[in-house]
Formats: sequence, structure tokens, C-alpha cells
Amino acid sequence: MRRLALAAALAAGLVPAAHAVEGMWQPAQLPKIAGTLRQHGLKLDPASLTDLTAYPMGAIVSLGGCTASFVSTDGLVVTNHHCGYGALQYNSTKDKNLIEQGFLAKNFGEELPGSPDMRVFVTEEIRDVTKDVTGKLTATMTGQQRYDAIDRAKKELVKACETDGYRCDVYTFHGGYSYQLIRQLEIKDVRLVYAPPESIGKFGGDVDNWMWPRHTGDFSYLRAYVSKDGKSATYSKDNVPYHPKHVIKVNPQGVEEGDYVMVVGYPGRTNRYRLAQEVQSAIDWSYPTQIKLYQEQLDTIAANGKRDPEVTVKYASLVAGLNNYLKNFGGQLEGLRRADAVAVKQKQEADLTAWLAKQGGAENQALAGDIAQLKAKLAEYQATRERDLDLMLIQRTQLFSAGVRLARLAEERAKPDMERETGFQQRDEVRIEGALKQMERRYDAQTDQDLLTNALVRYAALPKDQHLAGLDTWLAGANTRPAIQAKVASLYKGSKLGDTAERMKWFKADAKAVAASDDSMLKLAHALLPELKAIQDQDDARDGELAKLRPRYMQAIIAWKESQGLPVYPDANSSLRVTFGNVQGVAPRDGVSYAPFTTAEGIVQKDTGIEPFDAPKAETDAIRAKAYDGYASKKLGTLPVDFLADLDITGGNSGSPALDAKGQLVGLAFDGNWESVSGDWLFNPKLNRSIQVDVRYMLWVMHHLDHADNLLKEMGVPTK
Amino acid sequence: MRRLALAAALAAGLVPAAHAVEGMWQPAQLPKIAGTLRQHGLKLDPASLTDLTAYPMGAIVSLGGCTASFVSTDGLVVTNHHCGYGALQYNSTKDKNLIEQGFLAKNFGEELPGSPDMRVFVTEEIRDVTKDVTGKLTATMTGQQRYDAIDRAKKELVKACETDGYRCDVYTFHGGYSYQLIRQLEIKDVRLVYAPPESIGKFGGDVDNWMWPRHTGDFSYLRAYVSKDGKSATYSKDNVPYHPKHVIKVNPQGVEEGDYVMVVGYPGRTNRYRLAQEVQSAIDWSYPTQIKLYQEQLDTIAANGKRDPEVTVKYASLVAGLNNYLKNFGGQLEGLRRADAVAVKQKQEADLTAWLAKQGGAENQALAGDIAQLKAKLAEYQATRERDLDLMLIQRTQLFSAGVRLARLAEERAKPDMERETGFQQRDEVRIEGALKQMERRYDAQTDQDLLTNALVRYAALPKDQHLAGLDTWLAGANTRPAIQAKVASLYKGSKLGDTAERMKWFKADAKAVAASDDSMLKLAHALLPELKAIQDQDDARDGELAKLRPRYMQAIIAWKESQGLPVYPDANSSLRVTFGNVQGVAPRDGVSYAPFTTAEGIVQKDTGIEPFDAPKAETDAIRAKAYDGYASKKLGTLPVDFLADLDITGGNSGSPALDAKGQLVGLAFDGNWESVSGDWLFNPKLNRSIQVDVRYMLWVMHHLDHADNLLKEMGVPTK
Repeated sequence: MRRLALAAALAAGLVPAAHAVEGMWQPAQLPKIAGTLRQHGLKLDPASLTDLTAYPMGAIVSLGGCTASFVSTDGLVVTNHHCGYGALQYNSTKDKNLIEQGFLAKNFGEELPGSPDMRVFVTEEIRDVTKDVTGKLTATMTGQQRYDAIDRAKKELVKACETDGYRCDVYTFHGGYSYQLIRQLEIKDVRLVYAPPESIGKFGGDVDNWMWPRHTGDFSYLRAYVSKDGKSATYSKDNVPYHPKHVIKVNPQGVEEGDYVMVVGYPGRTNRYRLAQEVQSAIDWSYPTQIKLYQEQLDTIAANGKRDPEVTVKYASLVAGLNNYLKNFGGQLEGLRRADAVAVKQKQEADLTAWLAKQGGAENQALAGDIAQLKAKLAEYQATRERDLDLMLIQRTQLFSAGVRLARLAEERAKPDMERETGFQQRDEVRIEGALKQMERRYDAQTDQDLLTNALVRYAALPKDQHLAGLDTWLAGANTRPAIQAKVASLYKGSKLGDTAERMKWFKADAKAVAASDDSMLKLAHALLPELKAIQDQDDARDGELAKLRPRYMQAIIAWKESQGLPVYPDANSSLRVTFGNVQGVAPRDGVSYAPFTTAEGIVQKDTGIEPFDAPKAETDAIRAKAYDGYASKKLGTLPVDFLADLDITGGNSGSPALDAKGQLVGLAFDGNWESVSGDWLFNPKLNRSIQVDVRYMLWVMHHLDHADNLLKEMGVPTK
Repeated sequence: MRRLALAAALAAGLVPAAHAVEGMWQPAQLPKIAGTLRQHGLKLDPASLTDLTAYPMGAIVSLGGCTASFVSTDGLVVTNHHCGYGALQYNSTKDKNLIEQGFLAKNFGEELPGSPDMRVFVTEEIRDVTKDVTGKLTATMTGQQRYDAIDRAKKELVKACETDGYRCDVYTFHGGYSYQLIRQLEIKDVRLVYAPPESIGKFGGDVDNWMWPRHTGDFSYLRAYVSKDGKSATYSKDNVPYHPKHVIKVNPQGVEEGDYVMVVGYPGRTNRYRLAQEVQSAIDWSYPTQIKLYQEQLDTIAANGKRDPEVTVKYASLVAGLNNYLKNFGGQLEGLRRADAVAVKQKQEADLTAWLAKQGGAENQALAGDIAQLKAKLAEYQATRERDLDLMLIQRTQLFSAGVRLARLAEERAKPDMERETGFQQRDEVRIEGALKQMERRYDAQTDQDLLTNALVRYAALPKDQHLAGLDTWLAGANTRPAIQAKVASLYKGSKLGDTAERMKWFKADAKAVAASDDSMLKLAHALLPELKAIQDQDDARDGELAKLRPRYMQAIIAWKESQGLPVYPDANSSLRVTFGNVQGVAPRDGVSYAPFTTAEGIVQKDTGIEPFDAPKAETDAIRAKAYDGYASKKLGTLPVDFLADLDITGGNSGSPALDAKGQLVGLAFDGNWESVSGDWLFNPKLNRSIQVDVRYMLWVMHHLDHADNLLKEMGVPTK
């Protein structure tokens, strides 16, 4: 995670809920753990958290990769600064840098349209569709047949569900043990209302990313707009604020050490139930290999940046992403090693096997057999991991990616929509078109060539049986760097896909036209399609096999845990979850203790005047003067900034409201500590902490520094 | 400081002893602060600490850059691992790496001779010689005359004091407010007795240098040998262990949080009484400039290392040193900024000025006038700081340095010894010869050329009036990098000083021969001597002026502080000092607390198996098994490793014994925390901490891991 905005990661766990507070719980599971919730301090009826159309769940929304909450009946939404960042970027110009300066609309009329891809998703319905998805599956199906049957069933469910202004998705739980259809109102007119300057909202920047102590004011405000008749609509000045049924109440007193706190949101992905061998592969191969490759990519981009400074600008976002991964992967390796994760998983698997054996009976024996088969399959799949990573690297280069995407889309378009490959259906075309356009802002031909050359040099070293005939034909024996370089240079010379108008032309072209093209990249892409499709079929077949075996493993886990009276939460899958616990510090390592709260004084300590530690002078002056306007914590004797809690969150939870025992807003989750980086595999209640920006800091910044009293009033927060 | 072995640094302060525990006290000052000592927990009579020939002072010795203590009547000495490092290096071979493996002599016969330059200095007498040094000074002397008079008086005092086997030095206190003649027995046969493996003695290495939490077992044992008649003698197998009059008693129970602790040793240099403008110059110019230049040097060496791996080996020590400075200077800047050091100093100077004005009287007026003059002089001296730094860089390159040294030595040799420049007297010739020989192991002609080119490119940019005519004549107008590079290349081509035999030949040559040499480097050096001498005379004249003005400033400070009942400790100057305080943790920044003790469990946490975090398996196994053999702290419930105290130490204190309230050994000082890096300018009692290795860890490693029970027995420590 980069802070907590959802980012895809490659990598694989089994941590049963041994510690009560661990877990990303489905709202419907909460009554089962009502006792634990109360024991930790919840004052609400746990059952009230299961109704998505009631308070507080009705007020919590997804931004697609981030979480947010309605905080006024006029559709005002609060989320992280880094979740509203796109709206700041979109509205910034050379002369008016909103990222740097921050922004405040003093009234509805001053609010700025967000970028066209911004969304607010209001979950209105969650329905179990396990039977609909798995009903027609048979034990004798091949992996491919199983994959196709599941894929088809999901598409049909989505199609039947989606109506104008609504988005439906089928979410897979426990690797296919159950499925849920989720229906969300998709609000498309999202406007920028308020964000503090970056020197507050991103204070500490990448240096402090995943770190504690933290002093980031990671919050901003958006507003959801709909058409006059209350329906989802793209931006129009005639649109009106959306009126949510529920609004999160703000508790301006916040929470103190030990208090109950819960975070509700849309965590993206965890690997808690992966097997020991998968963890082992991540430690031994996946992370170290990617660290090496990403470092090579960074070096290549840096070398090109020396040649042409424009490259540095174009690749800034990729570079930031790669650096972020490098830091993350380092943290993963450190955390997994320190937790002795492989040994922990092996022990758990052995315990489960022993339990199954002890229970006896045909079904348990069958489960044990399926688990053994799962392990064997996973081992088998590792055979092509080098090739799969290579193909990913090749297809991440931009000219290649554009070529393959265009060739593929042209082919898929010829089919009925329901038969088109997921990701290439009608509903996906807007996204594909956007990506093809975006390329112009991120593409440098020479850099792209160099990156493709790197990937192909690696490809050339793969065992022959993992080669692609189409690629080898094109390479015509080139297997040294200079030879590959020459091939790549001629590929780029013969292609016009670096030109946006040209890509847009082909975006509209049909399969026949693409097949007849003499653009060198399109030709290569077209030639590769059957093999790429075959590899994807192979992947799908694997997914189909795993969709049979993983649920069996989870079934065994669930039965085992149920025998101990312990419910099992599913891995994160971008669906709505609740995590609860208490405000508390952490002792990350021998000799070191971290307090649960950071304070305003720490901002002055960190402030060097140099980004990312360049707090506004008005802020440091106010802190030196202790001008906290009544927002300070009495217990701390000063103004809290961020706080820690033992909550179980991950990427996608960014912007999630932190709620107190009564369900009132006391902060926003925006990151985890360094020790929690590996928490996606193995949650360690002793070391893993979520990081929240404190509501008192938010309100103080709004009132004292940015004079956003209009919003405080709108949220019903008395100004002091 | 690199850990605490004495390292020269460029850099200046005024921190009166506002907090009682701050201070590097002269033993003779202790009775004046007896109340404070007792209040902090000292059980000994403070007066007993003033007698250098009594317990415990009689047992504490200098190693020249490090401190150590006698711990047995047979001359066994305990110090830091990094202080005994040279003996390990000296005795290591390709096949037998003592640094890596550690070493234990099971009896006297197995002990190994240390490197020939190793020394144990036993201080036998400290005598105030202020009148001898300053008696003949007059108010009308020029700076140069004053410098010469002081220099001459010191040389005479040293000459009259030094007898066979004894070394005498005149130490300057308070910038010349007082002088002391110190007479030390110089033991020249120092042997290696015991050191743990580097994976314990240097655990954490450079990564953890200046850092807490720390888990370094930084201790080793040496033994002092003398001739059979008890006199100082160089190594001979006939020598016998030296019998010190006093021996530090070991307290195997150690200390706990809050306990009294004091460190006795030889701190090298502090700048506590420098003026605000000197601090400002360090912050604005000295540290940032050096950071830039050292980084450039590192880049140059790295580039040469790519060309020839041998360069990497030859320059490893310089690279380590430069990296160490870079880290240190970064810490200095961070600490000085955070402490707002310039403002603190300015306030103190303003307060002092106000106090002097309030006192009135001619003498106080004169003091104020001298302080104003000091400030003016210091400002004046800054005019040539760029040139001075450049000349230092030029003279640090090796061929140049050898040339100048040889040319200079030849000239000085022609004079009577007492008239020879300090550093070029008879007593210095052995050291000069050693350095000229050593060069062969650290010299690469191309790298040296590149470093000289860098320095000269910088020199060429200096204002014309700061140029050296001799250097300009040689450069013959070359002022671009390529032109300078060509000049330098021809300089190296025309010189044989890269050859050791050649240097040794010239080492013995007289001034006439050197003057007639056609070696290009010697010719250049010879041509530059008059100007270099003139610059040095200028420096000496400045020193002479400062030797008049700084003592006046200190006189004012002392009077001011005395009026408040506060004694003033002098800046560190490598003379024996005492610092006292209590075992305590620290809260280094908002949200973070450090415990006063680290524990053995932390070693396992840090252990990655990769140097410098590669603890011996026997150790991690023992820790996992909690096999602490009774050495654990009952209060901590485990084995302590290192501990923090609010003691005021600096480079040179390495190896200093940490003594408890009764003067018994409870650990060895070996470093300060990161926040104390800038402590040389400004001691912050809230943040600055000394780091000690705990005696219980030392004893446990000796007993449980290394089976050094012979030493435990010799020290009178019962084995458990």
C-alpha cells in the first residue's frame, strides 16, 4: 500500500483469528462476535452495523480504491487528502497550483468539478449469490470449463443487476467458497470542496510513508452531485447535491488512549490464507526478483532522464510507484522474516492436517486430499513464474501494451458482449480509450525501448520451452543485448502507435483492419495474440482449478476454527468490512516505544522548511503559540495530530472513517506502520497498527488555518 | 565521533552549566560540586576523586584517542572493541582473521603483541603551569610574538619534564585561560588478551553507529607490559606484566534505571564556548560545504573503483571515514537546527554583555571590549575560510602531502630542535616516517590525481587575492578542469614519490638535496614552502591573537557563572575528565520513547545473518534458550546489553569505564546517541545520552560464549 490507496501487488497466508481484534469482518458477521465487540468497548448494538441502509453503514461509501463518508445531508464527503489528490491535480494550472496551495470553496458555486473518472459508490445491496455462481459446477469439469462457467455466471448476474446509474459486481470470498453480488449507486459528478495545502495534507511525504511517528493531515472534502431528479449523472452545472440517507456524526472530542475505535471501509486485498509454500516463494523469489527488476527499471529511467529532463517529468509517477514498491517489498521481506512467517504457516497447516485426521470421516479425508492437491498444484504453477513475470514486464512497456490492447479489443469486439473477455466488454471500452489517450503524457519512445529491451534480455534467458514462438520469430535469433536492442529499435521505427491520433484511429478499427495493418507493433501484437490468449487460457484454467481447491481449504479452516468457537473473516476483496480495536501505541522493537498519539509540537520538530517537511509558517507559528482554540486533548495537554490503533486495514481502506464506540467520526485511517507492511500475509496484533489522522487536528486545521467554518457549520460542528 | 574514538573535526559554543549534570569536569573541580554529586547518588567522597594516584583515578589510563582501565594487578586493561581493533588487525592473516573470529589468550604466553604504535598512558602528575606559559606575555605583543612565546614556553616545559619512558604535554584550558603540564608513563608493550568476534564486538556496525537502540558488545582486553625492572620498554618477550597501583573493581550486578553512574576518561575536543557567529558559520558554510566536497571525493573514488577494484581496497578506510563524516555532519546540522543553537548562543552572549555592563568597573568594561574584539577577529578570519579548506583538501592528497612533508622536514632538520616547528621536531620523526611508509597501502596514482584535480578546480575559482603565487606559477594559467587535469598528469609523470623507496630516500635527505631535486612534486613543494609557511605564520598569529582574546571571554563567563554560584567546566582537550549522571532513557522526538536498556532479545530481533547484523549462532541459540547463567537483571527479567545515561562525553571517551556510586565498573562508554552528535557544540540534557555496554553482557559473553573464565578469575569476578 502507498498509504492506503488500493495498489495492486503481485504476491501470498493462514492466520486464523487467534487474536480477537484481528480481522476484516463482513458486516453480517458482527453479531457472531458481539461479545468481543462489547468487550472492546462498542456501545452500539452490533446488529445495527449489519444494515447497510442504516446508520452508520449507510453513510460509508467507496471512491473506487479509497473509502469515504458522508458528513452532511448535502452530500459532503470526507476522505484522505491522497484520495482527493486527483481532483487537485485536475484543477491545477501552472499559475494556480491547488496541490501546493490547497483549496476551499466558500459555497456550492465555488466547488470545482473533479476529474471525469472520479466516482462515489454508495453500496445499496449485498446479496449472497453462491448458489447462482456454483450451482452448475460439477466435480468433473476441467479447470478451463470451471473458469468459464464461473465467469459466465458472474457476467449474467452483473448484467441482470446493472441498471442506469448503478454498478454491480460479484465478489469472491474465501477463494470461491462464497460469492456476493454487490449493487452500488455510481455517482459520477464528484466535486472538490476543500483540501489543506500539501504541506499539511502530505506533510512527511514519501519519507514518512508507512512510518510512525506521523504528522500528516491526510484529509480532504468532496461533494457528490446528482441530476435534479436524484439520479446518477455526469457533471453538469444543473446537477444538485446528493442527499444521502445517513450522515456520519462528528465527535469533536475525539478518542483517547485505550478507547474503542473501529474503521469501516473497502480493503482491497490480503493474503492471510495463503499456504506456507506461497509465502516461501514470495520471500525467496517474488520480492527479491521484483526488487532487482524494479531497481533496473529505475536505473534505466534515470539514465534517460539525464539525456532528456522531460523523461523525468513523464515518468515521475512510474518512478514514484517503483520506489514505493521497493520500499514496500523491503518491508514485506523484513516483516515476514521477523515473524518467521513460513514456520508459522507450516505449523498451522500441520495442526489443521492433524485436526482433520483426528476428526476422521470421508468428508474430512476428502478435504485433506484436496488440500494436498492444492499444494501440489501450487508447486506446479511455480514452474512458469519467471516467464509470467517477464511477460508482465514486456506488456507493461507502453508501445507494446497499446499494440496488444488494440489488437485484442478489435478481436473481442467481433463477439457478442457476453462472450467477450472480461476487461474487454462494452462497459470497459471507456476505460481502455482513456488509457490509450493518457499514454501521451507518460510515454518517451527511447525510455520505452530501453525498458522493453531489459525485459526481452531477460526473456531470452528463459528455458526454451517457456518461449513464445511468435516472439522468437520476431526476435529472429537475437539473444544478446545489442542484437535485441536493434530489433526493438526497428520495431519502434516501424510503428506509429506512439502518436495519440494513430492510437485513437486503431481504437475504432475492426479486427480485419488491424490484421491487415503494416504498423510493426500492431503486426507483432496481432501475431502474438493466439499465444497470449493460450497463456491466458492456461491462467484461467489454473484459476478454475484453484476456484475448486481453495474453497475446500477454506472449508477445512472454517470447520476447524468453528470447532474452537472462532469465526473466520475472509481475505480482503474490496468489499465492505469492519475492523475494530482500541487506540494504542506499540513497542516495535527492543528498547523502542511509540506513543499512540503524535502532537502538534512534533510538526515543529520535523519542520525543516524543505519539502516534504515544510509546514506552513502560519501553522508552526500557531503551534509555537499553542493557539489550539479548544481543539487540544485535555488528557494530552496539547493538540493530537495522528493516532495509532490495533486495527486490521490494508490498501483500499484509505479515507475510511475511524468511528468511536457510538459510531461517531474521530478520525480517518490513512496508513499502517512499517511493521504492518507484511500484515497482508500475517497480522501481528503486537506490532501491526493502523494510522489515523485525528479529528481534532482536522477541525483545528479547518478552523484555525484554513477558515473553513462554512464546512464545520455544515457538518454541525460548533466552532470555538 | 565515530563511536567515541577520537577523530578530528573542523568545527565552535557557550553553554554554561545550567543543568547540573552537564559537564566534563576536571577531577580537581569535583569537590566544588560535591553536593550535586551526592544528590545524584555518588557514595564515594568527591575529594577521593581528585587524587590521581588513588582509587579509582589511578586505575584509569589513556590509550591515545581512547580510554581504558586496569582491571587486574597484572596490568590487564579493559577498553572498547574498536579501541583494541588495531591489535586484532595487526595479528590477523588471510588464514586467521582475528577480527572475524575474536581472540582469547588462555594464559600470558598466548597473548599477542599489539601493533608497535599501541600505547598505554598512565597519568602520574597534573601541574598547573599557567604562570610558566603566560608569565612572559605582554599586552603589546603581536599575535605572532604571542604565539611564538607560548609555543616556546610549552616546548621548554615538555623538555624539562620528559624523561625516559615518560611523555609530557602541556594542555590548554579555556582557550588559554590556564595551562596544565601532564606527565604520563608511556607503556609501549601492549598485548592483545581477548576480544569477542566482530559479530558481537561490532554488531550493528556503521548502520548502528551513533544510534540507539544499540546491541554492540564493544569491549576487549589488553595487557600492559614493562621491562623486568618495571620501566617502559618496547615489545620484548622478556617483558613482564605491569603492576598498576590501583585496579577498578567489577560490579557484576551492574546498574539499573535511575542509578548513579559516572564516566572517567579522556574526551578529545568540544566547542561548548564558541560564539554564535562560529556556530552560524558551521551551519551555513562549514558543514554544508564539507558535505558537498566529501560527496565529490566519494564519487571520484567510486568512479576509480569501477576502473580498478584494487582502488576500492586501498581507499576503503578513507571511504569509511568520509561516509562517517557525512553522517556526522548531517547529524550536526540536524541537531544544531533543532536546538536553535545560534539563537541560544546569541541570547547567552547578550545576557553576558548585559551582566558585564551591569557590574560596571574598568575591568568589566575591558572584558566587554575584548569580547567585541574577539567577535571582530573571528569575523575577519572567515575571509579566507574557502582558501583554507582548499589548501587542506590539496594537502590531503597523498603525493602532494608527501612532497610537502619531505621538503618541510628537510628544512626544519637544519634548525636546532627547540626551534623546529611543532610536528617536525626530533620526537615527531618516527611518526612522519611511518606515515610516508603507510602511503603505499593507500595510494593509487590516478585516484590521487583526480582528487587533486577536484581540489585545484575549486582553488582556481577562489578570489585572486587568495591565490598562492607558487601554485599559480605552476598552474601557468590552467583554470578549467581539462587544463588542470593536464597539469596534474604531468606533475605525477615527473615524480617518483609514489614509490616507497624513493620517499624513504628523501626522508633521509638534507635541505640542499631536496632543493636541488628535479622530482616534479618535490620541486613544486619546495617552491610552495615559503608561501605555505607564510600562511602558517598567519594562522599562528591568529592563534596568538585568539590565545589572548578567548581567555578574556572565558574569564567573563567564569565570573558571570561564579556570581550565580555555578562552576564552569572547560572544553574537552584530551585531558582527564569526569562526567556523572544517572541511567535513563530518552524521548528523542514526538511520539518516541527509548528505554534505558536494550536486551539480549533485541539481538535476535536485529539478527539477519548478514553483516553487521550477524550474531553468532551460539549467541542467538543461547538467547532463545534464555541461558543467561545468572547474569540477567532481576529488574529487567532478562540480560541487558547496552544502556543509556545522561553523561557528557565525546570522542576520546571510547573505552572509558562507567562506574557506579561506589566507583565500581558497571560498563564501558562507547558512543552517544544520534541527538548527541551536535552535543559537542551544545549539550542538551533532555536529548543527549551516552551509550555504554553493560558489564553483565560483557561477563556473560566472556563466560557463556567465549569461555574466558581465566580473565573473570583474574578480575576477581565469581563465575556462576
